[in-house]
Amino acid sequence: MTSLWIKDVRPWGGPATDLHVVDGLFVAAPAGPEAAVVAGGGRIALPALVDAHAHLDKTSWGTPYRPHSAGATLAALIDNERANRGDLGPVRERAGALLDRHIERGVLHVRSHVDVDPTIGLDSVAGVLAAAADRAGQVTVEVVAFPQSGLLTRAGTAELMAEAIDAGAHLIGGLDPAGFDGDPIRHLDTIFGIAADKNAGLDIHLHDRGTLGAWQIERIAERTKAFGLPGRVTIAHCYALSTVDDVRQGSLIELLAAADIALTTTVPGTTPQLPLARLMAAGVRVGLGHDGVRDLWSPYGTGDLLDKALMLAVTSGYRQDADIERTARLATEGGAAVLGLPDYGLEPGCRANLLLLPAESVVEAITQRPVDRTVIAGGVVVS
Amino acid sequence: MTSLWIKDVRPWGGPATDLHVVDGLFVAAPAGPEAAVVAGGGRIALPALVDAHAHLDKTSWGTPYRPHSAGATLAALIDNERANRGDLGPVRERAGALLDRHIERGVLHVRSHVDVDPTIGLDSVAGVLAAAADRAGQVTVEVVAFPQSGLLTRAGTAELMAEAIDAGAHLIGGLDPAGFDGDPIRHLDTIFGIAADKNAGLDIHLHDRGTLGAWQIERIAERTKAFGLPGRVTIAHCYALSTVDDVRQGSLIELLAAADIALTTTVPGTTPQLPLARLMAAGVRVGLGHDGVRDLWSPYGTGDLLDKALMLAVTSGYRQDADIERTARLATEGGAAVLGLPDYGLEPGCRANLLLLPAESVVEAITQRPVDRTVIAGGVVVS
Repeated sequence: MTSLWIKDVRPWGGPATDLHVVDGLFVAAPAGPEAAVVAGGGRIALPALVDAHAHLDKTSWGTPYRPHSAGATLAALIDNERANRGDLGPVRERAGALLDRHIERGVLHVRSHVDVDPTIGLDSVAGVLAAAADRAGQVTVEVVAFPQSGLLTRAGTAELMAEAIDAGAHLIGGLDPAGFDGDPIRHLDTIFGIAADKNAGLDIHLHDRGTLGAWQIERIAERTKAFGLPGRVTIAHCYALSTVDDVRQGSLIELLAAADIALTTTVPGTTPQLPLARLMAAGVRVGLGHDGVRDLWSPYGTGDLLDKALMLAVTSGYRQDADIERTARLATEGGAAVLGLPDYGLEPGCRANLLLLPAESVVEAITQRPVDRTVIAGGVVVS
Repeated sequence: MTSLWIKDVRPWGGPATDLHVVDGLFVAAPAGPEAAVVAGGGRIALPALVDAHAHLDKTSWGTPYRPHSAGATLAALIDNERANRGDLGPVRERAGALLDRHIERGVLHVRSHVDVDPTIGLDSVAGVLAAAADRAGQVTVEVVAFPQSGLLTRAGTAELMAEAIDAGAHLIGGLDPAGFDGDPIRHLDTIFGIAADKNAGLDIHLHDRGTLGAWQIERIAERTKAFGLPGRVTIAHCYALSTVDDVRQGSLIELLAAADIALTTTVPGTTPQLPLARLMAAGVRVGLGHDGVRDLWSPYGTGDLLDKALMLAVTSGYRQDADIERTARLATEGGAAVLGLPDYGLEPGCRANLLLLPAESVVEAITQRPVDRTVIAGGVVVS
């Protein structure tokens, strides 16, 4: 039996207390005299950050700076990546470097989309799974087999996605069934078919805005019910929801809630943010993701999910404490609900995955994002 | 004679070189053997950051965290501030604490709006000027006498603004002549009249969006010419420019350029960003400001202008290196042009105000914003 006594911390910025961990789980009873001690010093305790939308295979984290080389369209970005990704070095190393950064900042659960296509096959899936295995016990990684270069438009990809599940991937991905892949019904029927066959969940990129995206949300909701997958489907980005009128937005939210479809946002720079308060009120699960970190798509990203939470708060126009705290909930409990993490939280019985932050309040933790954090995974100090 | 030899730095991320400083100014000739040496270690050198729009008197920097206490409207925010500002402690201390943070991050020039109204009189102006004097040689502060609580709607304010100039303030402010103060022509005629009388520049807050704001930009341009103030007027925020149609935007930019009116942005969270490329092409001077830092208006802000540059880049949708670098230009040269700083830059003859950043490129400096910086003011290492 190993035990840990985390003294004088403030869960969610509330009153100071001690947290006790035995064999990796929080327990209600005080730790015994044999427990190792972490001096909290009045710091805030949050459950581990959850990055609900990452692309670990794409990152150049830990490698030299490269100027951005792509054009501005989605197709140009995808072509640029296929042309240049070979120069980046092994996925296992790059993904591992970013996971190390995640651990340092307290991001202990990650859902990563990983490219699958006929050129790279399952190599990137294997690389990300290996990087995660290298850090077992410190961070958990869910892999989504992602048809970045097209599903219908790139023959052999669907078969590879099914194989990816056999090789250890956890979910089936999708990408703009209409706007990018060109045949929304066939795209959706294909990925839902694979998911049902493999008993896997789905996580679908949907950038298509306005009515085109809204129409696809409705088709996804239909299939979620028809294939018996409520609670196991996520729509990523879902820009359509904030680019249709209020009435349509309300009816889409009802559909999402009824099919228990989760959403993830990565905080777009130039698209209105998701209507978070309305989604929460309807009971829709919403997670926060960092998206690409310093890759062939974008030079941005720090690996610190609190940077994204700040960006979300500012671009949502939040000033009130309760609103800003909502972004911290998304970065933790929201993502945990999207991933379906068992035993998540700071309560007795939960796995002791947490971070301690020197801040007076959760709002201050978001606005200042202090980097000197104590990170504990399974009751062990990992950073 | 004092001299400094700054070895192995990369100005603007270019090739490595040495910079030589004699009596506070960059010189072309190598420093002599008596020079003190700063080891650049290949870091990027940028000229000092310029915060072109601050509110030093309002900050709670260095004081305990306070929950946000205001309602959502502009009037509610202003009323909340008048009700609670007395609890914050002396302006000189709070403004000084924020200036110390600025110096640490390399912000060595600040233009601060400072509230003037019949209740506080010129106390806040005196407090900010004292905080600046306490740090003479390290940071320069321009003070704008700012009618935060109304000009026409609060009797006695205009007279106090004029007195503020006599007391050491540098510019005359204004605030939404139509949307807040209710009589745009009388508001503008009043502030332009004071500015002309006192031979002072003007810096006018204009949040009014769309056609209402556009109409006021036209009235400001007319008066800038009529009062002989081209080159001496700034419009802050200027949301109207990004919330009218393209044709109107173009004609407004022509007016701004013709009257040499500068703009400042503080990077709004939920309003489209200024059309920076179009403004640059027209030769309009644009500066970047941090706006309030942790005050009764907003819980946000770090005192690090590079955080604002990142926010500007992301919310402008920039991915290309040249676009992202534009935000660093705004944070330095752009602000220097707005403030009319003499001898600004890294060239021989310029005052040696600069910062060294551990980054491979300017883009990386913006995306990662390293905090371990060497800051030099007038050839002296100040942080």
